[in-house]
Amino acid sequence: MSTIPTATISRLVTYLRILGQLESVGVKKTSSDHLAEEAQVSAFQVRKDLAYFGRFGTRGAGYSVPTLRRELSRILGLTRPWNVAIVGMGHLGHALAGYSSFEQYDFSFSLKAFFDKDPAKVGRKVLDTEIRHPRELPRVVSEKGIDIGFVTVPRAAAQGVADQLVAAGIKGILNFAPTLLNVPNEIHVEPVDFLVGLKRLSFYIQNPQLKEEFA
Amino acid sequence: MSTIPTATISRLVTYLRILGQLESVGVKKTSSDHLAEEAQVSAFQVRKDLAYFGRFGTRGAGYSVPTLRRELSRILGLTRPWNVAIVGMGHLGHALAGYSSFEQYDFSFSLKAFFDKDPAKVGRKVLDTEIRHPRELPRVVSEKGIDIGFVTVPRAAAQGVADQLVAAGIKGILNFAPTLLNVPNEIHVEPVDFLVGLKRLSFYIQNPQLKEEFA
Repeated sequence: MSTIPTATISRLVTYLRILGQLESVGVKKTSSDHLAEEAQVSAFQVRKDLAYFGRFGTRGAGYSVPTLRRELSRILGLTRPWNVAIVGMGHLGHALAGYSSFEQYDFSFSLKAFFDKDPAKVGRKVLDTEIRHPRELPRVVSEKGIDIGFVTVPRAAAQGVADQLVAAGIKGILNFAPTLLNVPNEIHVEPVDFLVGLKRLSFYIQNPQLKEEFA
Repeated sequence: MSTIPTATISRLVTYLRILGQLESVGVKKTSSDHLAEEAQVSAFQVRKDLAYFGRFGTRGAGYSVPTLRRELSRILGLTRPWNVAIVGMGHLGHALAGYSSFEQYDFSFSLKAFFDKDPAKVGRKVLDTEIRHPRELPRVVSEKGIDIGFVTVPRAAAQGVADQLVAAGIKGILNFAPTLLNVPNEIHVEPVDFLVGLKRLSFYIQNPQLKEEFA
């Protein structure tokens, strides 16, 4: 298990999305060729990615859509609920708290706590939960079993918040601040950067003749 | 130019980010091997991706970092400014309007207009610009030369907003609503989905022994 490229993990997320779409239209079997075409990689890549985690499907018979979907969910850790705290209840924190599609996907993330250091915000309620001061992070993380912190503070405050989250015992960070975070090796930080999508969009506007190649 | 996979475009964005990092620490030359390692693909893939757009670098001598960076910026359409309208001035629209890192990257997107159908919001100012009703989209898009629309309305309203943006003449959409949008073939829609990052994070929390493999 020690040599799995991070790009494989990204592709597993893509395969899982494709399997979900297939299942939603009643398709029961699929193949590495089909997954490859939808994900825009080679069929060899699909088989190699899956082979890191065991044997799926039968040679010549392809994959069972519900089985492979369930297995990928398990591999990605999506069959257990994750408890989330949002730190930074500005517009972005509130937008995420109101994100209505949280429960529609085939995994469950539960927003358990909200933090902001602004005294005007502390004590206000979001989703029936009081916003708390970050100094309460250690107690709340422990009491509510928080696994993941969303960092939604401005860039200049992000490292300080990451330090507080790590000290409080969270396991991973989804970082919305446009800056790199230094954390201990055992904590994973996943950056969220909408500018990547904006750059792709820029390319396609610039090159409209490529429109027919879009996935 | 007609068979470029969308995955190539995503990788060009990644190569550009890596080149920016190299340039920021003063590195002048790089190789397909180094770009491949940083991007977690094969060196063959790097060369193949670049070959769609011409010849870069010299066999055996690698690539000039500033030259390749400039060329990729040009290919991606990042050397010209893009004018953006945000439709949906809830928390997410406001968060994006306040996104402070817009100008720090090597491309320029300019927020030119804001729209919301809520009468309580129409007329309020964001970044010194009045929020307008979407019925004014055709005039404003034309007058301000808007290229790109950010869709930041709830899921149920997203298709209607996309239709209005298309009718008003925009060229591309960055879609933050958790739903697929139907648009004419010549318009590109780029979805933004932070749940992908959350699923990757879930995997790494579930499999902490893989931490040393993180990029």
